[in-house]
Amino acid sequence: MKRVYNFYAGPATLPLPILEKAANELTDFNGTGMSVMELSHRSKPYDAVHSEVISTMRELYKIPDNYKIVFLQGGASTQFFMVPMNLIGEGESADYILTGSWSQKALKEADILGKKTNVIATSKETNFDRIPKEFSVTKDASYVHITSNNTIFGTQFQSLPETNSIPLVIDASSDIFSYEINWKNVGMIYAGAQKNAGPSGIAIAIIREDLCKDKNTGIPTMLRYSTHIENNSLYNTPPTFSIYLINLNLQWLKSKGGISSIAKINENKAQMIYSVIDESNGFYKGHAQKDSRSLMNITFNLKTPELEEKFVKEATAKDFIGLKGHRSVGGIRASIYNAMPVEGCEKLASFMKEFMKNN
Amino acid sequence: MKRVYNFYAGPATLPLPILEKAANELTDFNGTGMSVMELSHRSKPYDAVHSEVISTMRELYKIPDNYKIVFLQGGASTQFFMVPMNLIGEGESADYILTGSWSQKALKEADILGKKTNVIATSKETNFDRIPKEFSVTKDASYVHITSNNTIFGTQFQSLPETNSIPLVIDASSDIFSYEINWKNVGMIYAGAQKNAGPSGIAIAIIREDLCKDKNTGIPTMLRYSTHIENNSLYNTPPTFSIYLINLNLQWLKSKGGISSIAKINENKAQMIYSVIDESNGFYKGHAQKDSRSLMNITFNLKTPELEEKFVKEATAKDFIGLKGHRSVGGIRASIYNAMPVEGCEKLASFMKEFMKNN
Repeated sequence: MKRVYNFYAGPATLPLPILEKAANELTDFNGTGMSVMELSHRSKPYDAVHSEVISTMRELYKIPDNYKIVFLQGGASTQFFMVPMNLIGEGESADYILTGSWSQKALKEADILGKKTNVIATSKETNFDRIPKEFSVTKDASYVHITSNNTIFGTQFQSLPETNSIPLVIDASSDIFSYEINWKNVGMIYAGAQKNAGPSGIAIAIIREDLCKDKNTGIPTMLRYSTHIENNSLYNTPPTFSIYLINLNLQWLKSKGGISSIAKINENKAQMIYSVIDESNGFYKGHAQKDSRSLMNITFNLKTPELEEKFVKEATAKDFIGLKGHRSVGGIRASIYNAMPVEGCEKLASFMKEFMKNN
Repeated sequence: MKRVYNFYAGPATLPLPILEKAANELTDFNGTGMSVMELSHRSKPYDAVHSEVISTMRELYKIPDNYKIVFLQGGASTQFFMVPMNLIGEGESADYILTGSWSQKALKEADILGKKTNVIATSKETNFDRIPKEFSVTKDASYVHITSNNTIFGTQFQSLPETNSIPLVIDASSDIFSYEINWKNVGMIYAGAQKNAGPSGIAIAIIREDLCKDKNTGIPTMLRYSTHIENNSLYNTPPTFSIYLINLNLQWLKSKGGISSIAKINENKAQMIYSVIDESNGFYKGHAQKDSRSLMNITFNLKTPELEEKFVKEATAKDFIGLKGHRSVGGIRASIYNAMPVEGCEKLASFMKEFMKNN
């Protein structure tokens, strides 16, 4: 069996032990004589998985009792419209902070619905190389929407913004479960699972109880948060195998000491690579401003596109996969989510030093 | 390794060879050193899977060139509102034939959207024990919606209804790929995958080109068929691992001789069990009228609820799992989709005869 260091931005690397466990029980889960994916979603053996993932998530992420956890489909892209559809009532508006392509897309979907939105800050003018620090929240806004980590640009909120009690709605698709959350102003966290939580095809939403009530009529049953909350994510058939994989991932996270522990590891991992950039005398140039750097996605450029291409080619030959940057930034992007082993970052840092020496 | 005969209505049994193959390559797919679910959805090795599943589906199901194939999320329940949202334009209406809970739910979602709908036939008054034969299609209806197979009640359209060129929209969640389709009047087929095509968490839609054009404005990007068609189901991250499993399932179907061949096997399988019912002198009483019987879900009652309970208990002890009927019908339901081996039906039929002898 071959394994590489997978730096893809998402779908992304998963911990090897969970893949091995899933492979071992793929034809016979817990002596049922069936795969998890063959179990009825109303059966007892599946129900045990469903309950465990919810209780483990609550425990690890320290989710207060007044928040509900639901599993949804359609990725964060579906939350881009479900959030304004459900949370902006008649005559109300919502604030958006724009820090990259994903927050722009979230805003666009609210606009398509004809909802009133306020862009209270953006870093677009500097190609999203930083998290805006100055903004004032609109009095009576239904929520303030942020993208906590920007996969494409490699920036991340270093702490959650103060919103004067207006609920924060956070797209945490690329940093959920990577650090401990201060729930004080949080109204809702949502995330596509395929970066830090599991496979693609499932989204997690954690919603404060008072925001779950139906504000608007005419919303299809599947698009109302209340439907999924009232039915414990079992209104229709959920992606059972994906939920099982999220459970395995959370059990693995627990075995690593939980989220405070993985957060420290994540800092160390990112530091290894940022150090090489900072000590390279401009050979590597980080895209993100230092005070806005992401611990999940490290973006940088080399002097020429040709050199960048050479970098990717030589890295690939050494089994460092997925390092080509997104077209919006160009250059290199190393995605180092929870599941990227420390060793992967050490080896990439060494390779970067060696490549610099030779070029 | 233990394997049982899994008669769950969905998620349902899958062919053992595809589970074994998936298990074998779960940590290293095709020498990439990554799991399929760890591959970027923009990577070459994933793209090969994505292309193969589409071309294989087109070939096996004999899908004409003027139909597009897309993978969606949110199950058939999401199609219940995407269909009227996209296909019923301003001032238009659509016809619905009600043959059970799922068609009622489909109708309800059109109603929530405020669309004009016409119920042109229903078998509700006989607890959905038959497929209505008499109906007239509304002139200028945008489509006629049917549920081709009714999982809960065990009925199935024996052939697709004649609609005078009004496009048929078919929820084929429980019989997709189980028989050859006459595409003549078909506007669209959609299906949640978890019964006859793969795992839960993914839906397949096959749409005639002329119906894909945007009729209405104000629809979120993810809810427009045109979005997914234009982006070949890669507008956002699709459920890559589920698509891979559908591909394995279709390759397995091909190895069994394709859809015409599996259709014959399905007829034989169902016949084994219906014969026992018909020859039981009323010991087993089928719910569906004979001319409306499903080849996928066989529903029947015994004389008393106590006897039904005993039946399920003894069956479970013999590793026939998931036979308890849905609460709307009670009794017994045996779901015998494509992946249920002939042997499973033979053994269930023998068990039924034995149980009858002893009770």
